[in-house]
Amino acid sequence: MAKARQNAISPTRAEDYAEWYQQVIKAADMGESSPVRGCMVIKPWGYSFWENIQRSLDERLKASGHANAYFPLFIPKSFLEKEAEHVEGFAKECAVVTHHRLEPGPDGSLVPAGELEEPLIVRPTSETMIGAIYAKWVQSYRDLPILLNQWCNVVRWELRPRLFLRTSEFLWQEGHTAHETSEEARAETRKVLEIYRGFVEDCLALPVVVGVKTAAQRFPGAVETMCIEAMMQDRKALQAGTSHYMGQNFAKASGIVYQSREGREEHAWTTSWGASARLIGAAVMTHADDDGMVMPPRLAPAHAVILPIFRGPDERRAVLDYAEGVAAAVRRLETPWGGKIEVMLDSRDMNAGEKGWEWVKKGVPIRVEAGPRDLEKNAVFVARRDRGPRDKYSQGRDDFIASLPAVLRDIQDGLFARAKAFRDANCRDIDDLGEFKAFFTPARPEKPEIHGGFALSHWCGDPACETRVAEELAATIRCVPLDREKSGPGKCVVCGGGSEGRVPFAKAY
Amino acid sequence: MAKARQNAISPTRAEDYAEWYQQVIKAADMGESSPVRGCMVIKPWGYSFWENIQRSLDERLKASGHANAYFPLFIPKSFLEKEAEHVEGFAKECAVVTHHRLEPGPDGSLVPAGELEEPLIVRPTSETMIGAIYAKWVQSYRDLPILLNQWCNVVRWELRPRLFLRTSEFLWQEGHTAHETSEEARAETRKVLEIYRGFVEDCLALPVVVGVKTAAQRFPGAVETMCIEAMMQDRKALQAGTSHYMGQNFAKASGIVYQSREGREEHAWTTSWGASARLIGAAVMTHADDDGMVMPPRLAPAHAVILPIFRGPDERRAVLDYAEGVAAAVRRLETPWGGKIEVMLDSRDMNAGEKGWEWVKKGVPIRVEAGPRDLEKNAVFVARRDRGPRDKYSQGRDDFIASLPAVLRDIQDGLFARAKAFRDANCRDIDDLGEFKAFFTPARPEKPEIHGGFALSHWCGDPACETRVAEELAATIRCVPLDREKSGPGKCVVCGGGSEGRVPFAKAY
Repeated sequence: MAKARQNAISPTRAEDYAEWYQQVIKAADMGESSPVRGCMVIKPWGYSFWENIQRSLDERLKASGHANAYFPLFIPKSFLEKEAEHVEGFAKECAVVTHHRLEPGPDGSLVPAGELEEPLIVRPTSETMIGAIYAKWVQSYRDLPILLNQWCNVVRWELRPRLFLRTSEFLWQEGHTAHETSEEARAETRKVLEIYRGFVEDCLALPVVVGVKTAAQRFPGAVETMCIEAMMQDRKALQAGTSHYMGQNFAKASGIVYQSREGREEHAWTTSWGASARLIGAAVMTHADDDGMVMPPRLAPAHAVILPIFRGPDERRAVLDYAEGVAAAVRRLETPWGGKIEVMLDSRDMNAGEKGWEWVKKGVPIRVEAGPRDLEKNAVFVARRDRGPRDKYSQGRDDFIASLPAVLRDIQDGLFARAKAFRDANCRDIDDLGEFKAFFTPARPEKPEIHGGFALSHWCGDPACETRVAEELAATIRCVPLDREKSGPGKCVVCGGGSEGRVPFAKAY
Repeated sequence: MAKARQNAISPTRAEDYAEWYQQVIKAADMGESSPVRGCMVIKPWGYSFWENIQRSLDERLKASGHANAYFPLFIPKSFLEKEAEHVEGFAKECAVVTHHRLEPGPDGSLVPAGELEEPLIVRPTSETMIGAIYAKWVQSYRDLPILLNQWCNVVRWELRPRLFLRTSEFLWQEGHTAHETSEEARAETRKVLEIYRGFVEDCLALPVVVGVKTAAQRFPGAVETMCIEAMMQDRKALQAGTSHYMGQNFAKASGIVYQSREGREEHAWTTSWGASARLIGAAVMTHADDDGMVMPPRLAPAHAVILPIFRGPDERRAVLDYAEGVAAAVRRLETPWGGKIEVMLDSRDMNAGEKGWEWVKKGVPIRVEAGPRDLEKNAVFVARRDRGPRDKYSQGRDDFIASLPAVLRDIQDGLFARAKAFRDANCRDIDDLGEFKAFFTPARPEKPEIHGGFALSHWCGDPACETRVAEELAATIRCVPLDREKSGPGKCVVCGGGSEGRVPFAKAY
């Protein structure tokens, strides 16, 4: 038997999934924890990925009629208190600003001074602040709809942080819209959910289930929360975006009142929706392997890296010239999705193997080696990140260049197909409570992260059944899928009551 | 005598400059104050301008080798205290987070709870946080230079806020670099200053003086602060960007130590540099007129707006089709600076005059009216925002389209030339102290904003002379220009001591 290949990431996914995740992020140099508890540093490779996520999602939001704006970081405590469920949801984990100065204290060290009359909360989300501002802007039905979005940082105090997935400060976009009618607001909620689905599936290559949260999982203050849910490689679920229909709750709390076409004073109907840098974590957990990150080409910080291989100064000049020529030709190409192909030329003077592995770990879709023999043959040596790290092939220079856009598309499509196949293989229709329990009971108690996946089971709609599953098995209903009825009616897996269709139960991030 | 035309903005610049500024921002719908003292809302038209500023400056920073990253919002108090001058500079105006929870208090209302062991400061700037992180990253000279930038929000408590120019929370970019040698760090400081100058002059059309701050105006903790200074239409100065050479001050405070090529432990040499959304205020104060905002075409949210003019449904369809055809043709054009020409078609059903004025006030470079008679002649009626609002001309459709990129360039160049001519006309060489005093004494005491402009006077280098001017005349040395010596030597306008060249004294924002 051939000796097992050493992986670039240790531990592997099978050995310790949670630690593997941290090590992938470290090896790809995407981010790290900071000296401030719960806050992280997003390093250039991770931030560049985030910039691509932002640009792509932003384009879609703008194309659908939304504009960007910017609202204050601080929310007066009294604003947060205006909506009872909302404050209940966020009061337990918020950063409170109480002073606006530091002054030398009795022992000479600086102490907070200039106490504020009213504490300010660092926004955990901006419904209440934006609501107060919309209340000023809206007088008549003619002022509606308002369709705004902001890209910003928010803070939700986090005692058990995890890079990208759960940090006290995180980057996100939050859209806030106000409408004349309930129907219009509901349509907006669904429209944005569909934008999220399209973006996450097409660009991040994450297949998702689209649905509605149960009451237990609703955003604090929402009438209905819609979401997209993805499956990670440890078969846990991750919520990748949410879109909330608020009814008139926040309009009433904030006083967003308009004069209707009939001359009556009415409260507006609002929505909010958000997606965050957690998507970076979702991409790592879906695509990365035991050799490091695998970037989906459509959002990769670089599509290809060229690695000149040479010994001594004689070879150096000729090989570099050749590599630069290839890079220049590639830079003239467009990706299949529009925009230039980004290619890096890594001419650092270091061990070629070590250098190659750096780019494997960063997840660049295509690595191209070019040495003296390739130059002679007018060829390049190509490796795709979606294949094994030693699975390389020689290709004529012009062929390589001509085929690159199609190869990028092939990798993108392949990542999605692979993730979808994994998810589908780990979804199981379960109708028996015993089987359901076994599904969520780790086969190896020392590895609680290894469990079944998504149990597609019937649910009667009773929160008590949902709670029982959550308490006994630490699994939740991820959403009630929009196409739930396709699975046909049945009996609740917990109580045997009537059910209109299956819903996915899963452990979740 | 013809009746004076009514201006769209009241008061005019001459009547009340400070109020005019607020009214321009309101009329252009760029921003407004928020319910949180000192914090503002950036509205879509203002934010879109900011996005263009960001994109353009970001490209230049990336092209010069800088990468973006993201660092924490919160800075532990002890970090801020590490550099004595730095904390002295920022302690008086900072937002202090002391708790991480709200809990019901004795009277049932929520009160701050979960007191932090160490207060956190909402970053006023990130030297100390980023310094602590660089200290971890840097071991050897091989780890240098580090050339990072972040786009983010910062907070400096502000009791007398002014939209865009001075707010408690503001948006900016802050670059932080670490180098092996003093020379390299100094070169970086100048390189970025030159990027700022190029960007601000070429894109925002703001002519600037480039120089070095005197010790009194230096960034807290810096060895040298370089800056670009612009003149507003009230002849006051506005600092439009700064670049700081820190020497080893912050490296020593944060422990950024590297092993040198000779094997010695050395402290790194650092720089930082920033430009903020204050540039929006600078653009308003430089280009806007008594009819509202005037957007520099290179960064305008839209380059042109098409206003179909029609009466009744018969005219409506034909005119809209025609207008849409013009818009489609314009959208295929590139600006002289690369990128598509952005054109809006405003087909709202409202009074045509009122509609036109909205776009005047928003400052769109080109307004195009198209009505039934234009359609017949295959022509359009064009107005340039850099000319009077009633100065319109008819132009053949194809001519208009073909000439549009050149017209945009002409407007851009014209705005710069006009601002430069204004500045030059308001710079005066002054060698006599009496004249100097008169220059900074308002001719109309009821209008303290009306004073001389930039007094180009000699200065001996003594901080006492600088302080005397600041105290008596509320004017400061804006910078010591890099080309100071061109003006030749002379005698200090205050004390008569020797001077190597003139420096601009001015009142400033």
